[in-house]
Amino acid sequence: MIILGVDPGLTRCGVGVIEAGAYRRLSFIHVDVVRSAPDVSQDLRLLAIYNGLVEKIERFAPDVVSIERVFAQSNHNTVLGTAQAAGLAMLAAAQRGIPVALHTPTEAKLAITGDGRAQKIQVERMVTRILNLSAMPTPADAADALALAICHALHPAGALQGGEREQHLTPAQRQWAQAAQKTRRRSSTDRGM
Amino acid sequence: MIILGVDPGLTRCGVGVIEAGAYRRLSFIHVDVVRSAPDVSQDLRLLAIYNGLVEKIERFAPDVVSIERVFAQSNHNTVLGTAQAAGLAMLAAAQRGIPVALHTPTEAKLAITGDGRAQKIQVERMVTRILNLSAMPTPADAADALALAICHALHPAGALQGGEREQHLTPAQRQWAQAAQKTRRRSSTDRGM
Repeated sequence: MIILGVDPGLTRCGVGVIEAGAYRRLSFIHVDVVRSAPDVSQDLRLLAIYNGLVEKIERFAPDVVSIERVFAQSNHNTVLGTAQAAGLAMLAAAQRGIPVALHTPTEAKLAITGDGRAQKIQVERMVTRILNLSAMPTPADAADALALAICHALHPAGALQGGEREQHLTPAQRQWAQAAQKTRRRSSTDRGM
Repeated sequence: MIILGVDPGLTRCGVGVIEAGAYRRLSFIHVDVVRSAPDVSQDLRLLAIYNGLVEKIERFAPDVVSIERVFAQSNHNTVLGTAQAAGLAMLAAAQRGIPVALHTPTEAKLAITGDGRAQKIQVERMVTRILNLSAMPTPADAADALALAICHALHPAGALQGGEREQHLTPAQRQWAQAAQKTRRRSSTDRGM
């Protein structure tokens, strides 16, 4: 299963692609940052981010897109741009019938380091180790996008898919949701051991 | 000039279309609400809103899309969905080379009623009068979308277009920006009288 992680942002939008194989073997495929020039108007910045995300999604044809869940309580000026970039990633996936999963930063940190309050550098080191990379992924902040992809591979339960969602799924999405549910059941059993 | 106003929202997204003729004569063309079902996942809701907005933009081929500017300080749970819907409207316009203008609710109220803190009902009454409608526009909350369109017709200066924007414009956009700038200069003169 190919998982494309998105660390949303209007200026820099991290994209990380991994393959999750049997026995949870994870392999690195791609990492990059989609950018928009801060000096152009917001509509053209959103268009640049959207086009960049579409290019990545079409190139890597992921089975699922894992996006950081954005919260309103973040009191930054950038939160709306971040939410908009996340929205564009959701749109680009939904337009292609690709399921979307949202994971909180805490979920991602917990899944990767075992500590929901891990430092950025700890997450980067673990991403490097999990994906068996010879060096930390560059650009550094794109490691978050890989972390979101890894998080989804290890703990897909944070995904959007609920019971009521299934009614609205395309056949491809339904197939995925059922597979994901099986994975989830299996991992619940794992956790029970 | 055809102006399409958008009152962004994830559940209900108001769309209002007017024509601004010579001597600031404004005519009503269309008003509607694009909806998404609250019980489906966020990605599919965004897709529904986007598809609805694209349908309106392609049907009415506006010269400009006037969207309510969303602020982070709105402490509602809905603010991120509202920002995302606004982002989709900007994307849909930018993909078609249609200029986008952002106007604050205060700008819209001020332009329409002369009072930036006007009540919703005052705005609705003035929208009805300005567009010479026989009854208040329905659905009622779509009046806000008409208000945004009217606001842009009367005070286009709230638009995004800045000096640096012009470098990134398509020929159609540049033509519009130049025309808009002329209008703005003219209206500055008006205000100076």
